[in-house]
Amino acid sequence: MARAWGVAAGLAALALAPLPAEAQDYDIEASRLLASPRFEAARQSLAADYDTIVADLITLTEIEAPPFKEARRAAAYAQMLKAAGLENVQTDAQGNVMGLRKGSGGGPLIAVAAHLDTVFPEGTDVTVKREGNRLAAPGIGDDTSSLPVLLAFIRAMDKAGYTTRADILFLGDVGEEGPGNLRGMRHLFNEGPYAGKIDAFISFEPGKAGRITHGGIGSRRYTVTFKGPGGHSYGAFGLVNPAYAMSDAITQFARMQVPASPKTTYSVGIVEGGTSVNSIPFATTMTVDMRSESAEELAKEEAAFLAILPGAAARENAARSTKQGEITYETTLIGDRPVGLTARSAPIVEYARASSEAMGFQVHYGSSSTDSNLPMSLGIPAVTLGSGFTTHRAHSLDEYLELDRENDLASMSAGLATLLLLAKAD
Amino acid sequence: MARAWGVAAGLAALALAPLPAEAQDYDIEASRLLASPRFEAARQSLAADYDTIVADLITLTEIEAPPFKEARRAAAYAQMLKAAGLENVQTDAQGNVMGLRKGSGGGPLIAVAAHLDTVFPEGTDVTVKREGNRLAAPGIGDDTSSLPVLLAFIRAMDKAGYTTRADILFLGDVGEEGPGNLRGMRHLFNEGPYAGKIDAFISFEPGKAGRITHGGIGSRRYTVTFKGPGGHSYGAFGLVNPAYAMSDAITQFARMQVPASPKTTYSVGIVEGGTSVNSIPFATTMTVDMRSESAEELAKEEAAFLAILPGAAARENAARSTKQGEITYETTLIGDRPVGLTARSAPIVEYARASSEAMGFQVHYGSSSTDSNLPMSLGIPAVTLGSGFTTHRAHSLDEYLELDRENDLASMSAGLATLLLLAKAD
Repeated sequence: MARAWGVAAGLAALALAPLPAEAQDYDIEASRLLASPRFEAARQSLAADYDTIVADLITLTEIEAPPFKEARRAAAYAQMLKAAGLENVQTDAQGNVMGLRKGSGGGPLIAVAAHLDTVFPEGTDVTVKREGNRLAAPGIGDDTSSLPVLLAFIRAMDKAGYTTRADILFLGDVGEEGPGNLRGMRHLFNEGPYAGKIDAFISFEPGKAGRITHGGIGSRRYTVTFKGPGGHSYGAFGLVNPAYAMSDAITQFARMQVPASPKTTYSVGIVEGGTSVNSIPFATTMTVDMRSESAEELAKEEAAFLAILPGAAARENAARSTKQGEITYETTLIGDRPVGLTARSAPIVEYARASSEAMGFQVHYGSSSTDSNLPMSLGIPAVTLGSGFTTHRAHSLDEYLELDRENDLASMSAGLATLLLLAKAD
Repeated sequence: MARAWGVAAGLAALALAPLPAEAQDYDIEASRLLASPRFEAARQSLAADYDTIVADLITLTEIEAPPFKEARRAAAYAQMLKAAGLENVQTDAQGNVMGLRKGSGGGPLIAVAAHLDTVFPEGTDVTVKREGNRLAAPGIGDDTSSLPVLLAFIRAMDKAGYTTRADILFLGDVGEEGPGNLRGMRHLFNEGPYAGKIDAFISFEPGKAGRITHGGIGSRRYTVTFKGPGGHSYGAFGLVNPAYAMSDAITQFARMQVPASPKTTYSVGIVEGGTSVNSIPFATTMTVDMRSESAEELAKEEAAFLAILPGAAARENAARSTKQGEITYETTLIGDRPVGLTARSAPIVEYARASSEAMGFQVHYGSSSTDSNLPMSLGIPAVTLGSGFTTHRAHSLDEYLELDRENDLASMSAGLATLLLLAKAD
């Protein structure tokens, strides 16, 4: 594949580069595809598959996949990729699982991914509870719900007899959520067996078609550990307490003003520290998330955050005794996601727009922090699209998705159409 | 025993009540006791027993006794109490083990205790390491080192042929350390087989004679859990965050003014909460310790602390969106130790002072939070005295004690003398 693509590099680049508007009408291409009997066969396959998709979703949701502990779910998904008929199903060194649907040759390599990891720690109850059309479980939406949709795409292409010029690599990848820091993507694009060979990338996340994420929200994430001498809560009363310095810092941080546009956000996600009720802690730690659509705003926000810390430590050192030691702090950068952008005029965005509109969806362009950040930051055309199901309360223990068969299938059809157009299906 | 004591209540009350200085000279009583051949025999028994005390200490230290998990050590200590010749050796419903050394009748009931529990969790390596005169292991001092000293007291009284007017109840008790919240004492004095019958209480803790704890520091301990809707750190930016409300509360708490005398203290010992860097936490929890020598100051401090909480929640609810839910909080009282005081003029304090001074120790009066708090709060004369060994780095993993044979034995002799004087030994 790699060699074939090397030989045909000129052609593939042509297929992916934006052309003058008069030379390529994405809407006509999309309408033609959607009206074709072959695509109708693909849609019927998706529809026939709906219950299987839901069944696979439940199976996968109930295999917990905390950050860095995706292996059991990855193994299950690798079996599913194999059962869907992909070639070269493999697990790379970071734990991404992937398989190839070979094209007819001379086309680009397109990677299509859903991430395996959830935000929930080991031991979270991931039993799926069904009430009417609601399926509830932590992680059921983000991003577990996209995994079985990719399988349905493969089956639909096969059932409808599609061949594509492009090779398509389907992935369940690791490390998309916070602590993973895009480790799956970094490995895929920089070191793994397909590093340097991927020409376009689509990440599927829950949600309707029409939501096109073509901007990558950048993020900077820190842990800050405040340290002090510690001591007995009564006997050593009056010594500096790192919990007080940290709370001072958090209180300042909570007051930071950030622009609504370009959207810029911050959060304290974890606080921890101390050993017993009757000891002044030796150390407390806060975990901070800062994000922006704008590299400049992100840098300003980060600078403002870092500027809070010395004052918080100094105020505590001034408020209480430092005779056994001062409050100090250490910052550790634990997340660094590049801001990225795929131009709206890029074919990958235009195919997504045209397919969504042709299926009757309204298009919303947006930015987010997803697997696509990484290829975007490398200049590889990338988008994150809705795979169909709508999820609610993502990242909360009461996450749920609402099954809405016709709309879900319409979104899936738009996603599949985008892929087929980009892959030059015949 | 209980009936005998009931009949002789007048006499016993007389023995324990402070008398005018001219009517009772504690120093003369102490000097007379210490100079007697019978006490010399008791001292020789303690000296001959020193290696046995150390051997028993190592045996007991190596049986771990975390809070609420003292049962194995308690069973071993019950065997030792039985071997020392006590009657009615029994384990009460909370796990205290105890045995009686009956007196000649007509005297009070004196309880003498060392606590079985340590602060260390299950699985802590409690192997004793000996280097020269140092014995190191978590818990070896506090309070394991007092347990074998009580056994040596019993043997010394027997060897020297002492009879006492008082009945003496020797105990290894549970629940002295933080989480135990004096559960052993509460049961002993309120519900157990000797409830309502104990007239005086001596708790032995590591340390030299002369340190007389006759004040019980009161404490009120809480966990406070702030809860919110949680959500995605970017997608749900703008929702209320429990970490901010908690930090606000801690920042206010850290500014509380408390009197230096009566000594009143506070601390945040543990902070925890949140599940991932990219989620707004659902809940964060702080663990708070408040103590005072004064019941009034403790109540004021507690009220001030509790008054901070609604404002902290309200400010966060006003600062950010509550459309997915508000910040609420829950307080849980996890520790409640009564303030107590035994007057310096009480015979139990005066006998301890006179015995210590007669043995050449300088006397320091103090307040602490020990088993004695409970009887003190009930108006039962109680003190906590040093049992002899000096411990270092108590409550830390590198706790050790330094064997110092002559001084250790001198402290033990002072402790035994205090008990003999109080028990009206003949």
